[in-house]
Amino acid sequence: MSRLCIHSVTTKPWSTEVCIQQFSRAGAGGITLWRYNLEGRDPADVGRQARDAGLDIVSLCRGGFFPAASGNDRQKAIDDNRLCIEQAHALGAPLIVLVCGAVPGQYLVESRKQIADGIAAVLPDAEAAGVRLAIEPLHPMYADDRSAVNTMRQAHEICDALGSPAHLGIAADVYHVWWDPELQSQIQRAGDTKRLFAFHICDWKTPTTDFLNDRGLMGEGCIPIREISDWVDATGFTGHREVEIFSTQYWAMDQSEWLARITEAYKGVYGSADTP
Amino acid sequence: MSRLCIHSVTTKPWSTEVCIQQFSRAGAGGITLWRYNLEGRDPADVGRQARDAGLDIVSLCRGGFFPAASGNDRQKAIDDNRLCIEQAHALGAPLIVLVCGAVPGQYLVESRKQIADGIAAVLPDAEAAGVRLAIEPLHPMYADDRSAVNTMRQAHEICDALGSPAHLGIAADVYHVWWDPELQSQIQRAGDTKRLFAFHICDWKTPTTDFLNDRGLMGEGCIPIREISDWVDATGFTGHREVEIFSTQYWAMDQSEWLARITEAYKGVYGSADTP
Repeated sequence: MSRLCIHSVTTKPWSTEVCIQQFSRAGAGGITLWRYNLEGRDPADVGRQARDAGLDIVSLCRGGFFPAASGNDRQKAIDDNRLCIEQAHALGAPLIVLVCGAVPGQYLVESRKQIADGIAAVLPDAEAAGVRLAIEPLHPMYADDRSAVNTMRQAHEICDALGSPAHLGIAADVYHVWWDPELQSQIQRAGDTKRLFAFHICDWKTPTTDFLNDRGLMGEGCIPIREISDWVDATGFTGHREVEIFSTQYWAMDQSEWLARITEAYKGVYGSADTP
Repeated sequence: MSRLCIHSVTTKPWSTEVCIQQFSRAGAGGITLWRYNLEGRDPADVGRQARDAGLDIVSLCRGGFFPAASGNDRQKAIDDNRLCIEQAHALGAPLIVLVCGAVPGQYLVESRKQIADGIAAVLPDAEAAGVRLAIEPLHPMYADDRSAVNTMRQAHEICDALGSPAHLGIAADVYHVWWDPELQSQIQRAGDTKRLFAFHICDWKTPTTDFLNDRGLMGEGCIPIREISDWVDATGFTGHREVEIFSTQYWAMDQSEWLARITEAYKGVYGSADTP
């Protein structure tokens, strides 16, 4: 399962160290760490631990949240993203995922402008640190307060406007984009422009009972994960399939059993063959 | 407030008769009835009651839900939509709003095909009855089981494919489409093609705690209702602004007080001037 990457937040009750140990033991090829995993720790140490356990560090989640009502708060967001870039560099994470942000009641066009301005401000830092930034379009149900960027097309538009193709790209999460009638063509476009930097998987349950923390395990929902994954691979993408599941229900389980269900579900989607 | 229309479901605890009486007394110009309002009643009688109370009957909610796993169930949906058309005709409602439907786990492209097939099947009945059909794009968070049509653009594509411009158009509900980066241009397109048949208002609360029944009253959320409304009016639209609010919270209130808050909020958005 060399292409299986698990987000630490998927087993949120576990400490950073236990995530590393258990993901490695379960046979995952990579780990994506969240910033809370670095609290009270030296990022370089965490990075060494993960690599010593045989895990690729796929990305650091998350930067972004650029829009704010005041210029002062927008500057704070930029400063925090610079700190995030430093942390990713120290950790040895080649990529930061950006949840772009939104301000309830502020026009989305204004938030989108502030997002582009914010990314433009930190992009030189990312380039200098050799850390890539991936804009993650978020599901439109998060347009009020989490992201004014809600489609792959919008993410492309920001990338087109800002340039820096080696360091600015897109993270596609099936949860956020599965409904999009343009999905296949926008994934293809991401391949053509070499800006598909990350691919996240989980599932959409019917019914979903919570806006944030009721994601499903692959196979228990309605997302055609394998089909979307095949579109992604058809672009030449050979990166990890990152399991990112926020779930109050699953966080309440024994996390070892939960991890076993994750690897089982991953095999269920991709079969035993895990090669590009 | 001649352009104010209220959906009966907005004051769900009230009977059909009380909705008609109270909406009229509150000064609304129109009412949109839901099909449950016709249960145990003669639609023609209900229509007379509403018109006698000085209310325009703006539409009947709702038809649609065309996709299904079996051909038998798809035929049942078509039959039910034909019944809905008969009911609208008897009621004197010039319009039916279509919530198009989706089947969890069925490819969205297949559901969209079944939707177009279903509409095509009932369109001759609608034409014969002089009842118009409005495709309502639903928010992408309902793509699993309520509608595979999630943007104005998709609704336009179905209209383009099926023709019948006098009888097939679009219902735009700010709750479903406010996030769409193409919203202004797609509203303009609806004006150019004369297919903007209905306009629904409410608000999006932050946080929203329930996927179905936590809509906000105009002004308490993040939707730029007046701006979107101005885009709609700029197309030449002179129809009603239909207040459609599903809310467990507001249904638990005294419904007279709730209705007073609705008219107050309507005036807050549109001012005292209610002319096109």
